[in-house]
Amino acid sequence: MIYLDNAATTRPEKDAVEAALPYLHEKYFNPSALYGGGVLVQGELRRAREFLLSQIADKTRFELYFTSCGSEADNTAIFSAARRGNAVTTAGEHAAVFQSFSELRQRNVEPRFAPLLPDGRVDKEALLSLVDDKTTLVSVVHVNNETGAVNDIAAIAKAVKKKNPRCLFLSDGVQAFGKLPFRLTPDIDFYAVSAHKIGGAKGTGALIRRKGVPLSPHIFGGGQEGGLRSGTENVFGILCFEAAAKKKFASLEGDFSRLKIYREQLYSALDKEIFLRISPEDGTPYILTVAAKNLRGEILQRLLEERGVLVGTGSACSSKHPTSRVITACGVGKEYLNGVLRFSFSPATTQEEVQAAAQAANSAARELIARTARS
Amino acid sequence: MIYLDNAATTRPEKDAVEAALPYLHEKYFNPSALYGGGVLVQGELRRAREFLLSQIADKTRFELYFTSCGSEADNTAIFSAARRGNAVTTAGEHAAVFQSFSELRQRNVEPRFAPLLPDGRVDKEALLSLVDDKTTLVSVVHVNNETGAVNDIAAIAKAVKKKNPRCLFLSDGVQAFGKLPFRLTPDIDFYAVSAHKIGGAKGTGALIRRKGVPLSPHIFGGGQEGGLRSGTENVFGILCFEAAAKKKFASLEGDFSRLKIYREQLYSALDKEIFLRISPEDGTPYILTVAAKNLRGEILQRLLEERGVLVGTGSACSSKHPTSRVITACGVGKEYLNGVLRFSFSPATTQEEVQAAAQAANSAARELIARTARS
Repeated sequence: MIYLDNAATTRPEKDAVEAALPYLHEKYFNPSALYGGGVLVQGELRRAREFLLSQIADKTRFELYFTSCGSEADNTAIFSAARRGNAVTTAGEHAAVFQSFSELRQRNVEPRFAPLLPDGRVDKEALLSLVDDKTTLVSVVHVNNETGAVNDIAAIAKAVKKKNPRCLFLSDGVQAFGKLPFRLTPDIDFYAVSAHKIGGAKGTGALIRRKGVPLSPHIFGGGQEGGLRSGTENVFGILCFEAAAKKKFASLEGDFSRLKIYREQLYSALDKEIFLRISPEDGTPYILTVAAKNLRGEILQRLLEERGVLVGTGSACSSKHPTSRVITACGVGKEYLNGVLRFSFSPATTQEEVQAAAQAANSAARELIARTARS
Repeated sequence: MIYLDNAATTRPEKDAVEAALPYLHEKYFNPSALYGGGVLVQGELRRAREFLLSQIADKTRFELYFTSCGSEADNTAIFSAARRGNAVTTAGEHAAVFQSFSELRQRNVEPRFAPLLPDGRVDKEALLSLVDDKTTLVSVVHVNNETGAVNDIAAIAKAVKKKNPRCLFLSDGVQAFGKLPFRLTPDIDFYAVSAHKIGGAKGTGALIRRKGVPLSPHIFGGGQEGGLRSGTENVFGILCFEAAAKKKFASLEGDFSRLKIYREQLYSALDKEIFLRISPEDGTPYILTVAAKNLRGEILQRLLEERGVLVGTGSACSSKHPTSRVITACGVGKEYLNGVLRFSFSPATTQEEVQAAAQAANSAARELIARTARS
C-alpha cells in the first residue's frame, strides 16, 4: 500500500512509540504524585514541553500547554478570547475553528468570515476590512488542510494588530508544525498544534500562548498544565509527540525541499486533460490537491485504493460532507467540486510512490470516464 | 516497590497495551477516512463503545461518547446542562466537578453545594432541600476519590427527579466504573468514566448519556463522536480502555470481595493510637484513607516511600493544596487534617502488600513522632 493521506493522520514513528512505551509500563505514575516516580514523570513532561516550544518560539516569550488534540487547542483559544463584540476568521479554516466560530453566534459574539483568493490563501485586505475596534479575536489558519495554501500569518497578524492592537490573534498550525520552517512572531498570541500529523499518536495536541495573554481554561478540574488544562496528562502521548517532533524538526529543511520536488513530479505525471490543480505552487510541499472534471472524488478514491494507493478527498475530518466548503471558497468551477483528490506526504514518502500514485490516478480516472461513457 | 496509589492512576495492563499497539503501527488510519483501513478502525471504535457501555447500562437507553479524560466528560455535561437558574452538587466532588461548578458563577448560574455526612457520603436531605424548580443540573459523585465513600446515586437521582423532573442528573463514576457492581438507572442522565483508573492509559475517558437528553458539544470541529466531541479519536487509548475494561469487568465481583478483606486487614494492622479511619466500611473496597494525628501526610508519604511503599495523600489531582476540601467537609478534627494517607488498591494488590504497607505506615509514623519529640 502507498499511503498518501498523511494530512489526515500519519503512521506513528516506531522509534517515537518505543521511546514513550516505558511510560505505559514501569513509569506509569501520575505526574501530580509527590513521590519519586511522579516527580520524574512531571520532569519528563517539562522537558517535552520546552523542546516542542523551542522549535518554533522564543521560550522567554511563549508558553506551551498540552491538550488532547489540535481541535481542543483551537476551541480553548477561541472560547477564551472571543467573549464579546465580533471575531474574524477566514473561509479556509479547519472545522475546529470554523465550527467554533459558528457556535459564537449562540454566545452573542458576531463571527465574520473573510473570503479566500483563488489560490486558497485568505484575501488579506478583505480580512482587514472586517477588523474593527469591537473585534476581540482574529483567527487565520497557517496551512490549509485541504489545499495546502500557506497564509503569511506573521504579516497578517502584524497588520491586524496595527488596526486593532487589543484584539488577539490565533493561528491553527496543525498542518505547519514540524513541516514548514517558521518561528512565532510577537503579534501571534495563540498557535495550535497536533502530534498525529507528524508521526505522534492521536490524542495529543498543544496550545502555544504568548506570555501574559489572558487565557481561561476550557476544561476545569485538578489544575494540571498550570491551571489552564485540567485532567491527568496523557504522558505516553506527550512523550511520543516529543520524540516524533525531534525527528521531524531534525530533517525539516531537507524534507521540505525534497517533498516540493516530489509534489511537482506527481503533478507533472498527472493527465492535465482530467485533473485541475488546486494546490498553489507556493503552498506546503506536503499537500497536492487536484480535482477531476465531472468525476466523483470518493469513487476515484476507491479505484485508487484498488490500485494500492490511499489518498484523501479533501478533509478526513469532514468526510461526511460531499463537497468541500474550502474548495468552493477558492472559486473552483462547479464541474470540479465533486472530484477532489488530496495527495498528502510525509518525510517517508518516496519518489517511486508519488510516480506510482500519479499513474494510478490517471488509470483510475480513465476507467471512471470510460464507465461513465458506457452508462 | 508496593504501589498503593491506584486511585491516582493504575499501571496499564500489559495485555491491554499489547492489544491496542497495532493501532499505532499497521492500523494507524484516521477513523474518518473512507478507505478500508479507516472503515476498519471506525468499526473497532464502535465495538469498544458498545462493549464499555453494555457493562453498566442498557444499550437501548444509553449512549457512550469518548473524551480525553474523566474531567472532560464532567465538564461537557456540566457546561451543557447548567446554563441558567441554579445547579446543585456536593462538597465531596472531584475537582473536575467542583471547579466547573465554581466557574458557573461567571456564567450566571448559581452553584449550590450540599454538605457531607461524617462518613463522606452526601447529606441526601440537605441536597434535596437545595433542589428547586430553577435547578437545571444536579451532580453527585458515585465514589469519592479521597475517602472512598459511595453515594447511592440511583436513589438520590430518583429523589431529585421526583422533586424536579426537568433537571438533569450527572454522576462522576471515575472511581466506580470497573470496580463496583452497578448499572445505570433511567434517572441518571450523564455518567463520566476514565480509562487510566482501571488499567487503561491516561488520555481517554467517556461520557455516557441517556438517549434523548440534550447535550451540546464542549469541543467543536470535524463532528466526530456523532457531532458531540470533535477531534481525531485517540484510537490507541480507546482500544486500550476496552481491553483493560474487559479484564476488570470479568473479575469485578471477586475483586470486590477480596479487596474488601485486604482493606480491613490493612486497617486492622494499623496502629489505632496513631491513625484515625476516614474511609467508611461500606465505602469502595479500593480505598482506605486514614489520618495521623498531628503528623504531616506528605512527610509520612516520603517515609513510606523510603520503606518501599507508594501511597497518596488525598487526591493526586489537587496535590498542590495542603489540606483537603473533602476531608475537611467530612468534619474530621483539625489535628488530623494534615496527616491524611490514602491507600488505594487494584485487583493486582496482594495480601502480602497490604500487610507490608501497614507495617511501613506504623514504622514511618513512629519515626516521625520520635523525630518530632526530639525537636
